[in-house]
Amino acid sequence: MAKKSLVLVVASLISLILVANHAVATEEDNQRERQTRLRDARQCRLHNISPNQPDQRIESEGGVTEFWNEFEDQFQCTGVAAMRNVIRPNSLSLPNYSPSPRLVYIQQGRGLLGVTIPGCAETFESSRGEESFRGSEGERAEQEGRRSRRDEHQRVHRVRRGDLIALPAGIAHWCHNDGDEELVTVSVSDLNNHANQLDQKLRSYYLAGDHQESRGSQRGRQGRWEDETFQNIFRAFDENIMADALNVPEETVRNMQRDDDRGFIVRVREDLSVIRPDEYDEEERRRFRRERNEMAENGLEETLCNVRIRHYLDEPREADFYSRHAGRLNSVNMFKLPILRCMDMSAERGNLLPNAMLAPHWNINAHTIVYITRGEGRVQIVGNNGETVMDDRVRDGDLFAIPQYFASALRAGREGVEWVSFKTSGMPMKSPLVGSNSVFRAMPAQVLAEAFGIRIHEAQNLKYGREHQTMLLPSSRAGFSYRE
Amino acid sequence: MAKKSLVLVVASLISLILVANHAVATEEDNQRERQTRLRDARQCRLHNISPNQPDQRIESEGGVTEFWNEFEDQFQCTGVAAMRNVIRPNSLSLPNYSPSPRLVYIQQGRGLLGVTIPGCAETFESSRGEESFRGSEGERAEQEGRRSRRDEHQRVHRVRRGDLIALPAGIAHWCHNDGDEELVTVSVSDLNNHANQLDQKLRSYYLAGDHQESRGSQRGRQGRWEDETFQNIFRAFDENIMADALNVPEETVRNMQRDDDRGFIVRVREDLSVIRPDEYDEEERRRFRRERNEMAENGLEETLCNVRIRHYLDEPREADFYSRHAGRLNSVNMFKLPILRCMDMSAERGNLLPNAMLAPHWNINAHTIVYITRGEGRVQIVGNNGETVMDDRVRDGDLFAIPQYFASALRAGREGVEWVSFKTSGMPMKSPLVGSNSVFRAMPAQVLAEAFGIRIHEAQNLKYGREHQTMLLPSSRAGFSYRE
Amino acid sequence: MAKKSLVLVVASLISLILVANHAVATEEDNQRERQTRLRDARQCRLHNISPNQPDQRIESEGGVTEFWNEFEDQFQCTGVAAMRNVIRPNSLSLPNYSPSPRLVYIQQGRGLLGVTIPGCAETFESSRGEESFRGSEGERAEQEGRRSRRDEHQRVHRVRRGDLIALPAGIAHWCHNDGDEELVTVSVSDLNNHANQLDQKLRSYYLAGDHQESRGSQRGRQGRWEDETFQNIFRAFDENIMADALNVPEETVRNMQRDDDRGFIVRVREDLSVIRPDEYDEEERRRFRRERNEMAENGLEETLCNVRIRHYLDEPREADFYSRHAGRLNSVNMFKLPILRCMDMSAERGNLLPNAMLAPHWNINAHTIVYITRGEGRVQIVGNNGETVMDDRVRDGDLFAIPQYFASALRAGREGVEWVSFKTSGMPMKSPLVGSNSVFRAMPAQVLAEAFGIRIHEAQNLKYGREHQTMLLPSSRAGFSYRE
Repeated sequence: MAKKSLVLVVASLISLILVANHAVATEEDNQRERQTRLRDARQCRLHNISPNQPDQRIESEGGVTEFWNEFEDQFQCTGVAAMRNVIRPNSLSLPNYSPSPRLVYIQQGRGLLGVTIPGCAETFESSRGEESFRGSEGERAEQEGRRSRRDEHQRVHRVRRGDLIALPAGIAHWCHNDGDEELVTVSVSDLNNHANQLDQKLRSYYLAGDHQESRGSQRGRQGRWEDETFQNIFRAFDENIMADALNVPEETVRNMQRDDDRGFIVRVREDLSVIRPDEYDEEERRRFRRERNEMAENGLEETLCNVRIRHYLDEPREADFYSRHAGRLNSVNMFKLPILRCMDMSAERGNLLPNAMLAPHWNINAHTIVYITRGEGRVQIVGNNGETVMDDRVRDGDLFAIPQYFASALRAGREGVEWVSFKTSGMPMKSPLVGSNSVFRAMPAQVLAEAFGIRIHEAQNLKYGREHQTMLLPSSRAGFSYRE
Repeated sequence: MAKKSLVLVVASLISLILVANHAVATEEDNQRERQTRLRDARQCRLHNISPNQPDQRIESEGGVTEFWNEFEDQFQCTGVAAMRNVIRPNSLSLPNYSPSPRLVYIQQGRGLLGVTIPGCAETFESSRGEESFRGSEGERAEQEGRRSRRDEHQRVHRVRRGDLIALPAGIAHWCHNDGDEELVTVSVSDLNNHANQLDQKLRSYYLAGDHQESRGSQRGRQGRWEDETFQNIFRAFDENIMADALNVPEETVRNMQRDDDRGFIVRVREDLSVIRPDEYDEEERRRFRRERNEMAENGLEETLCNVRIRHYLDEPREADFYSRHAGRLNSVNMFKLPILRCMDMSAERGNLLPNAMLAPHWNINAHTIVYITRGEGRVQIVGNNGETVMDDRVRDGDLFAIPQYFASALRAGREGVEWVSFKTSGMPMKSPLVGSNSVFRAMPAQVLAEAFGIRIHEAQNLKYGREHQTMLLPSSRAGFSYRE
Repeated sequence: MAKKSLVLVVASLISLILVANHAVATEEDNQRERQTRLRDARQCRLHNISPNQPDQRIESEGGVTEFWNEFEDQFQCTGVAAMRNVIRPNSLSLPNYSPSPRLVYIQQGRGLLGVTIPGCAETFESSRGEESFRGSEGERAEQEGRRSRRDEHQRVHRVRRGDLIALPAGIAHWCHNDGDEELVTVSVSDLNNHANQLDQKLRSYYLAGDHQESRGSQRGRQGRWEDETFQNIFRAFDENIMADALNVPEETVRNMQRDDDRGFIVRVREDLSVIRPDEYDEEERRRFRRERNEMAENGLEETLCNVRIRHYLDEPREADFYSRHAGRLNSVNMFKLPILRCMDMSAERGNLLPNAMLAPHWNINAHTIVYITRGEGRVQIVGNNGETVMDDRVRDGDLFAIPQYFASALRAGREGVEWVSFKTSGMPMKSPLVGSNSVFRAMPAQVLAEAFGIRIHEAQNLKYGREHQTMLLPSSRAGFSYRE
């Protein structure tokens, strides 16, 4: 892959130098070329899928956001965009919303997540808000009446390593790292989701913040990629209109709209500890258990406001598939986390022991985006024209897409492999070639024998060679007996 | 028809022979240019949205149809087409159906609307039909048996100024202006709606009527815009086949298919007063109240035939948002008018007092098309790349689109402003920046302070500056106190 | 794979440097031309629809698969692909799955159909499996334990002439002709269906089999059309990985992956009679009656596993429309066959007596693909710009598409005509111009008179000329009286 990228870079350099075209013309040509390439990719005529690391980044005062190249064929075909966020301790990811639903997996650290749903009540009270408020520089006169008020706001969610977070499209959210280590998240946005009536492009609309590097640069009509992706929408409003609308002095709006060099993740200057929701956790958990499956289309007021958006995906005891000798799979779909019904997405956490395999299978109704979180393994994907479109080693930090209906197999390396996968269906279905719920098992042995031109006892072996295993296959080379 | 085919054949022969035909080449170039432009627009890379008046019109004997330019970026991005219809007194808009659902707002006048749902019963009887029938020129012999029959037909709806009408895709309808003033309607079609399996193009298929001006002109393969938009489909059928199918003399079909110069809205020659449904209105209203929320997928026979298609949107007492000092908002969504669930559209009627504002907000799940019906105001829209894509005065007759997720603000001028807006969701949701249900209010004050780099008391002002107001904001400059 | 990428990179470098490469340019031009044509077709700017026979075929040892040209405008507009399968006696169509839902009509013969739904139980036991197994060449040692086991597999369906089969996307299936005559099927795939998240292209992924003719030919990046359409995905996997996954000797996998010249329909070498499900048929039928309407989203385990996928469409006693003098229509929609709700497709079987007509009508919510099974007739379709896009004789074996909203009429020839039509909606609705449920009948006679500029008695004739007939119209020329 590295070689290929280099060659490509050289090629584009050469073309930049050699082609003595006018800047505008080149740009137009590039646009057209990109369009054509995108159209092909959207048609999923893929000949190659590579496990990749992010190749673009936006630096901020309080962290870094990295992006996988959304124009790569595999992401164009599956209509998704992936990014990784690092929020440093005591830093705040600024409030923003996105035109497409997004699943976020917390790979490391912990934080507080605020999700603001319009029309829902401010059910949280920052109990120590007063003190903190008193402690700040005292503007007595102006808010005499307000001082006694404790700050009320919508629910804040405690999120931790191993959590999967569901962020619906168009809902503003913010996240504060109140832990001691970096908060690292990986997220996938489903740009083709029915919720998005705009075009297939990753975007986040920020209410605050700015591109750190872009101060002073002019932004023309053909903006840089970052400018098209992360935008401050608050700043574009007329300060007079905003001051009137908010009923605050224009100076406040000017302050809010001013350029700053903090980026989209900022270091927090004061203590945000007032908004910790931890004490509610136990009660919450009980309530949520009752709420399951209550999400119905016509009960928005009751359910949208206290809908669960978080699911702990790393709990070994709640594995959906478990094999002592192969590993485990934890999945979360719209039955476990009802908001996923609206979002039509879901996720899975996988863990394979050394040399174990994930059964070769295809996905019936979803694209799958796989992010390796630990270890390494070998992945084969067979697609489109019956070609092997991927046959690669993958290691932690790699991300790749398996389009719908493409068949894939994964074998763990010597240290096992762990991953989280994101799917573009709220109720994904796999069809494995191998194991107790496989297509081979489901067919008469004689049909298999005739289909493959093999003997009947070979067909029986096909059907019963992994009779008691489902999706998770211990290495058959390890001398372990599967046929007790 | 035969003539037309011949012309086409000749035309294609010519173009085959004269390969270097400049006109053709130019046309193809234009086609390609338009395609590219459309593709960009569909990608919603908008840099400018303008409030516009219609720029195309079809004249008819009994009225005028005006169209906003459907190829403009804002309409291509949002996938809608808008038009305004003027039907003169005692004129009839001819029966037609459209490949996409359409919402119609009656801006002025009153009329009778017939919507023909296949398979539903003829529940209306024109009680004075006999007399009228007797009065017509007497063809005794032929319909002796039929004369005693009173004319039965499907329900006819009384529609009036302030009504919103829901016209599902593919359902034929007609409208008669039986009032004393012009019947003026504004309508928006959702071309991207799931109901439309064809392409994104405004079309109306007429069972009768013709383009007034197009008599005598040859229509080639590249028809004029009007010919692609409004078509008579009845005329294209073979007269023999139609006569056989309808079991009427061929002469009748010839009469039905003949060219006439009346256009698609015709002056009525005889009295149509027989079909007035007014006397049923009271009973209807009672029945409809019971029907609410009964629209279910599996009860088509019961509900599709007497489904409500009309909602009075101008009733001040039924406002969803009301502020004595700012104005009011009346909305109709799929809960109020169940047919909107199938159509996945909805509408809102707004009224702002002088200098009042509609809170800056974005739409979570819908595009919005705004038509100004009275007064004037100032609109700001911030979109795509965080740019201000619109900052304009709007006045009555202007129409513009606010794409999904784009943030907008509206301030009324000195005489206030009124509008109707059409949305591409059956249950649209707004997320306001300001007011009691705003994203600022929903966030902890400290998060706001850190996000915007402002002081805590400024953040408190942000949250509570419009504490008791929702969407409708009286001018804060007017000296009115919002914080009683 | 790596090699291929390198070659590609080099190729693109060369093409950058040698700008005047003719081959590349030509290919690109062709590509672009096709793209443009497809885009127009997808935009449904159709000027001509023709009834066609298949124009491509894949020969196999045990039968033939024929394809209608999927790039034709009518199929691009409607987003469907059609094919005809001939499976010879005692031959087996190999296991495969498709990225889009497919409806199959059995035109001739009978067979056994296996549909493997992942996670469902193996509820069928091949009772004579043992014998057959014993009869095969004896490998004693290896499967001593397994021999006493009778072969268990998922349900096998008996299918017969006149059946309509619903094959959901992504579900592997196979079919064995155990009858005495050729098994002939016609099927239509809905490529634009929401189930398909890939591009609009007909594909079948086979677990076994190969293109008969393609042995020895190199398959480049621009594969032949067949290679893109029918693919063996099993063969592309690494034999070592597959052997490990299946827990079988690598030799078995090698046997399964080897090229053979049998194609995708193979002759069966041994007796497959063990898997006949006929004895269950009566019980099944009773159970299914109970199951109707039980298909709900949240009961997958209970219903997906024993969902009905078959409906007998040729039963005269179950006709939905019947006229002693005109013919009959049998339809199957999501209410009769609940799986069609998920697939959003449906079908209709029509039978017209000599000279009878199918009422001119348009489809409100579906494209219609018509396949003529017997006799001949005349079809008129009026579309897009009010043009007659088709006016042709059709005869058995012809297939054509009627796009949504396009109006059509069909008159049987002297020997009548029979057809099956496939629709892209689970609950299609027609709007006829003629008959008891027609738009003319639904309108007041006076509106018709004014609309068409005809006399009131002519309008009455329009409404009541076919008063007692619905969709099926006996020839009015035949002297039959419709107005008893």
